[in-house]
Amino acid sequence: MPETNTNGHYGLRLKTGLAEMLKGGVIMDVMSAAQAEIAQEAGATAVMALEKVPAMLRAEGGVARMANPKVIKEIMRTVDIPVMAKCRIGHFAEAQILQELGVDYIDESEVLTPADEEHHVDKHAFKTPFVCGARNLGEALRRIAEGAAMIRTKGEAGTGDVIHAVKHMRQILKEMKQLTVMSEQELYAAAKNHQAPYELIRMVAKAGKLPVPNFSAGGIATPADAALMMQLGAEAVFVGSGIFMKERATPLDVDVNKDRSKFDSQKEFELAVGKAKEERAEAVSRASAIVQATTHYNDPKILAEESAKVTGTMKGLAVAAIEEKDLLQTRGW
Amino acid sequence: MPETNTNGHYGLRLKTGLAEMLKGGVIMDVMSAAQAEIAQEAGATAVMALEKVPAMLRAEGGVARMANPKVIKEIMRTVDIPVMAKCRIGHFAEAQILQELGVDYIDESEVLTPADEEHHVDKHAFKTPFVCGARNLGEALRRIAEGAAMIRTKGEAGTGDVIHAVKHMRQILKEMKQLTVMSEQELYAAAKNHQAPYELIRMVAKAGKLPVPNFSAGGIATPADAALMMQLGAEAVFVGSGIFMKERATPLDVDVNKDRSKFDSQKEFELAVGKAKEERAEAVSRASAIVQATTHYNDPKILAEESAKVTGTMKGLAVAAIEEKDLLQTRGW
Repeated sequence: MPETNTNGHYGLRLKTGLAEMLKGGVIMDVMSAAQAEIAQEAGATAVMALEKVPAMLRAEGGVARMANPKVIKEIMRTVDIPVMAKCRIGHFAEAQILQELGVDYIDESEVLTPADEEHHVDKHAFKTPFVCGARNLGEALRRIAEGAAMIRTKGEAGTGDVIHAVKHMRQILKEMKQLTVMSEQELYAAAKNHQAPYELIRMVAKAGKLPVPNFSAGGIATPADAALMMQLGAEAVFVGSGIFMKERATPLDVDVNKDRSKFDSQKEFELAVGKAKEERAEAVSRASAIVQATTHYNDPKILAEESAKVTGTMKGLAVAAIEEKDLLQTRGW
Repeated sequence: MPETNTNGHYGLRLKTGLAEMLKGGVIMDVMSAAQAEIAQEAGATAVMALEKVPAMLRAEGGVARMANPKVIKEIMRTVDIPVMAKCRIGHFAEAQILQELGVDYIDESEVLTPADEEHHVDKHAFKTPFVCGARNLGEALRRIAEGAAMIRTKGEAGTGDVIHAVKHMRQILKEMKQLTVMSEQELYAAAKNHQAPYELIRMVAKAGKLPVPNFSAGGIATPADAALMMQLGAEAVFVGSGIFMKERATPLDVDVNKDRSKFDSQKEFELAVGKAKEERAEAVSRASAIVQATTHYNDPKILAEESAKVTGTMKGLAVAAIEEKDLLQTRGW
């Protein structure tokens, strides 16, 4: 049994342990065990299991929910690296299921359709650590107050446009720097203005950083994007739709042993298998280039080499072209 | 090692060296080594490597990023003239990669999807010189303060409509002239109004011109357009979508030695090769006419002759027909 504090809460220190181990790495969205294998092969430090990558959710609309436990378990059986999974904002029952499945991290994510307009999950009530998105310091500290053990920028998921990941990272860092030069009196006002607990405001003012790891997500699509976020101060990056896009999901899923019956002729089947193999190799190379760029984010020579290897970068969707109401990042604040 | 000033910055003088050599010439957008060869053959003083010309980016949407380093290197291997390449506004990791590749100039360009809503790249931190776009004097001086060694008008890229290149050039020249007749007191107010550093305002007031070369870009499509901009005061011109448009990119890319297998019959292949050769000759003649017009911008006889040689000028898109939100020129100011 992990230690609890006087409120019966599992301590912050304990839960940030895994996040500390993920620092400097890449966490990749995967929709299947096959994709999880590719991610592991490419050097991902963890995978995020979800039914569809954000770009697909965005394109298809509808209600996005927790992935099917069967798929999550299959992913957990397939790879040795930590497996995360997403629950809807405020959907504590999905979170309970994910904890029961034994996932290593729960992402209470704005990428899924929120289940509660006002409340997030009370994350202190869980043994499994949580990661939550934030656009600014106040949002980050509210999530930490609720028990989040890791913060990531929200950015704008499923776009392949890094601009809001940059914006949110800069915003959080700027607001933290501002706290460090404030007087005691000013900190009370800062807590009010950030709509965040005073104790956490004070902690950040003293330390100059969040009390939990600060990762980046939302629109990272190229090795250069990953390096950019790491240089800006992210401690690790999440890559979502940039690796496994819709058009790639199908061929990669052709099962050489099982799917012969889906094709009219042996030749068509062999062509599909060949194409699937080729696209798998492309995905590995694309994923591995982002991992290398994240590790060597300060080495332009390696960044140039890895960038040259990448083919099939997602076309993307410029955030500036998205209507306010269609933004994912405004869900839950 | 180049000299640095007291701030550890590489000096302004050093970096403008190449820009000085480009004066009076044409810098052409190219998407491949084959196009770069045509540009060189036509007399371009430099080429700008990018994944797609602005007219294509505008038509296709999505997120526009730095070109693949593989293509940039191929272009650098193919031509002897300087090679520039574009990075996204604020994407300093892309800029680091371009510097590592050894490009001669980096264009921090509004034509690509911006990576930062508020900040541009700190260009003083680079050895490679930068060019940036501007719509008015304040914008030009802010970019110079950040370390830009060359300014170009923004115009409206990918339109083939010269109207905003004219507008921005006239605006910058008018604002510079106004500074030259101001009193010392007025210069302080001018710095405030232009939202630009006072020292640079003062420098322009004394010299009557920018401390770096002032080129023109954004919508230049004909020899007459190039001559217009040169007569207005541009020191050189950038030509983007006007030379290599989408419909030309494909036939030009037919490789006489390699691409036979892409065609069903020898006859079809020969037709395609013939068409590619014809269109190549057309592109050379179109590009060369713009080069000649830029050199002889004050000689209407030559301008008339060169204009007569041009076939296949881009259809273009009138700037007045573009919605405010779809303008590229408003990105980053």
